[in-house]
Amino acid sequence: MTSHPKLAPTLYDDIKALLGDRVSTAEAVREQHGHDEGWLPTEAPAAVCFPENAEEVAEIVKLCAASGTPVVPFGTGTSLEGHVQAVEGGVSIDMMAMNRVLEVNAEDLDCRVEPGVTRKQLNEHLRDSGLFFPIDPGADASLGGMTATRASGTNAVRYGTMRENVLSLNVVLADGRLIRTARRARKSSAGYDLTRLFVGSEGTLGIITEITLRLYGIPEAISAAVVSFDTIEGAVDAVIATIQMGIPVARIELLDEVQLDAINRYSGLDYKVAPTLFLEFHGTEASVAEQAERFGEIAHEFGGGDFQWTAHQEDRNKLWQARHDAVYADKALRPGCSFWATDVCVPISKLAACIAETKADLAESFLIAPLVGHVGDGNFHLAFLLDPDDPKERAEAERLNERLVMRALAMGGTSTGEHGIGLGKMKYLQAEHGEAVAVMRQLKQALDPQNIMNPGKIIPA
Amino acid sequence: MTSHPKLAPTLYDDIKALLGDRVSTAEAVREQHGHDEGWLPTEAPAAVCFPENAEEVAEIVKLCAASGTPVVPFGTGTSLEGHVQAVEGGVSIDMMAMNRVLEVNAEDLDCRVEPGVTRKQLNEHLRDSGLFFPIDPGADASLGGMTATRASGTNAVRYGTMRENVLSLNVVLADGRLIRTARRARKSSAGYDLTRLFVGSEGTLGIITEITLRLYGIPEAISAAVVSFDTIEGAVDAVIATIQMGIPVARIELLDEVQLDAINRYSGLDYKVAPTLFLEFHGTEASVAEQAERFGEIAHEFGGGDFQWTAHQEDRNKLWQARHDAVYADKALRPGCSFWATDVCVPISKLAACIAETKADLAESFLIAPLVGHVGDGNFHLAFLLDPDDPKERAEAERLNERLVMRALAMGGTSTGEHGIGLGKMKYLQAEHGEAVAVMRQLKQALDPQNIMNPGKIIPA
Repeated sequence: MTSHPKLAPTLYDDIKALLGDRVSTAEAVREQHGHDEGWLPTEAPAAVCFPENAEEVAEIVKLCAASGTPVVPFGTGTSLEGHVQAVEGGVSIDMMAMNRVLEVNAEDLDCRVEPGVTRKQLNEHLRDSGLFFPIDPGADASLGGMTATRASGTNAVRYGTMRENVLSLNVVLADGRLIRTARRARKSSAGYDLTRLFVGSEGTLGIITEITLRLYGIPEAISAAVVSFDTIEGAVDAVIATIQMGIPVARIELLDEVQLDAINRYSGLDYKVAPTLFLEFHGTEASVAEQAERFGEIAHEFGGGDFQWTAHQEDRNKLWQARHDAVYADKALRPGCSFWATDVCVPISKLAACIAETKADLAESFLIAPLVGHVGDGNFHLAFLLDPDDPKERAEAERLNERLVMRALAMGGTSTGEHGIGLGKMKYLQAEHGEAVAVMRQLKQALDPQNIMNPGKIIPA
Repeated sequence: MTSHPKLAPTLYDDIKALLGDRVSTAEAVREQHGHDEGWLPTEAPAAVCFPENAEEVAEIVKLCAASGTPVVPFGTGTSLEGHVQAVEGGVSIDMMAMNRVLEVNAEDLDCRVEPGVTRKQLNEHLRDSGLFFPIDPGADASLGGMTATRASGTNAVRYGTMRENVLSLNVVLADGRLIRTARRARKSSAGYDLTRLFVGSEGTLGIITEITLRLYGIPEAISAAVVSFDTIEGAVDAVIATIQMGIPVARIELLDEVQLDAINRYSGLDYKVAPTLFLEFHGTEASVAEQAERFGEIAHEFGGGDFQWTAHQEDRNKLWQARHDAVYADKALRPGCSFWATDVCVPISKLAACIAETKADLAESFLIAPLVGHVGDGNFHLAFLLDPDDPKERAEAERLNERLVMRALAMGGTSTGEHGIGLGKMKYLQAEHGEAVAVMRQLKQALDPQNIMNPGKIIPA
């Protein structure tokens, strides 16, 4: 690992005076905070802090600001593009001790949480309230991290992403000031949308210390369905027709034949090894049945095979557990591999072409990469499973990913639908946004003139 | 009117060289561009420009920037808080010549428009496509103005506000640079959310020259309903129960007995003069019927009277025309009056208390103000109808509005749900956002260091 062990004189002692045992320079702790679950090498911070409240976060930031020392917020470490690597050294701030659900306003369908609460922890907390929080990236990520990366997942087609589901944030700024970005009203036209500015800012503008989130009533009825197709084009065309007809699917996930095979092996299932859609419908008993029926007609039209649907909770859980385990199923295909997920998102009219060209690229490559997609949004992932010691494989994944990103951009899409820029996608930011990157840089300079907040991420120097 | 006739030497000639006849200093033109439909006095710009494309807008801004001259964008002039007043003089840029629908991507449910396209014009253009754009402030406002004020309207409870429905913007910055804030993908985690930064920025950060908007399929079935209640508390409680049960109402509008009386007089209707909800349901035939039935049960539980619903388009149009004419019905109550609409929005659990305390205030006042509300969002308006020559009435409206704003803030709400800050709400921004106002000011200074973009709005000096 690359390591940046030196801190400014007295800084460690000052933090120690503030936090006592809750700061560490142990190599194992630094190593663990120097990488995420992506493909980029570890870059360890010089120290790791474990604050327990916003005031402590503000004090740490003030101490670091005094010597221009970088601060890098850390959640569950499940990001994928090197968001947490301490590329300029400094202090990692592990937010996971701030993990209280502070308030649930059931009548208003919202709640306030600390950033270290994970999505599953929140839903566990909500279990008896009849409410749930829908955003579900693959990992059981922290809500702070999900906010910082503008995460989404399988439910975004119906419930939106973190962008739509954060009502307000408390944020510690680069000079230690603590702000609240908005109030709890569902909508407001009162000034600049600071909430959305911090959602997706990946720790580069401030550190999130509290989140107010929208919640939803658990639907009266939920049913799930699986349908396999002769061709991936058929599956994608069925998705496009479903979205265009306005069927309010809660989830519509594509898995290609390679992914189905991996899931069958990992989870001991016997799905047909073919391009397949996993779906979920939310609503009343009657509307769920109607949605399923209408989708069944569309699937049939586009070459979908046996359309099986179930309202049985155990069957649904098995299905979605298998879907969420896709990444582990992939990794099991090649034990010890380095995992690299692509993340383009395109307008849905371009999705079939984008996937077809990408699969054609893969067919001519020596790499194998299962494909999964939140296709209702136009977002899909390839999972490259690489030998970490083989530079040829890495180079080939880079070549294929670059072709994929440029293809998506040419189609009006984005280099990242939900993972974020981090380190890994910085080289594409200019191609994606042009002159707007200069505006992002101006905002960064205005709010963090010393460049201490997660420096070296998102915006190329 | 207050008038600021002087421009820097040569600026008028330079603009004239660029635009020919499309710049005016005629007093009537300046007067018309010096006020909106709100209660604040006219402050006329020194000149008014009528650009026809983004390049002309950029050139005008560059010319103005050279002498530090303010630029104030102007759409339909239907804002309500003095957004277009040229409080520091300078040049008004009338965007209404840029009124082309540039592209409709029916498959992707999106479109690109110039900022001078109005919401009705867009829906007229979409008429044969099976698509529609749902955001509907009372006026037939320009989409540029609606973006700049983060507008919403009666459909926001189902379809969101401009915040959720703008995919991307082209913007001319204070130095004349032209940027595009995002691509056309439904979601993205690629860098800072510049789109949302400009949505609601009221012309203070840049001038919007193109908008990419989400569209929706026209629902297969639409039905509308009217139900009156014995008490306004009953009506509001029925709304709260409807939202909490997750009934996906498309519209749920409250009108108090004063408003019903005004509408009956203006539109020649005979609704019962009582607190009333107007609703609309969107979906399939079956789901619309189910929604109406379930709402009917809720209404009955909370003292709702005869629940009439209709799927007949002519009846629906009459109902919503009457609702949209509320402001004209109000003005007709007192011909020649000055119109002043309040705009608080609170968490829905506080809505009944907020309305009750507000009505109690009104009962003790000599002013009469009809009440309408997008109550599914927690947003409601009082319409003060003032004698423009009576400072006592103005002072009383100011007193009541201030009490209302402070009441909403104390309940976790906002001073403005959809009208914006403009000039009129600047005095409440600090109370609403605290230290976050300083961050807004930093962003403004970063992007507009000369303070030429609609200066004197949103952020107090």
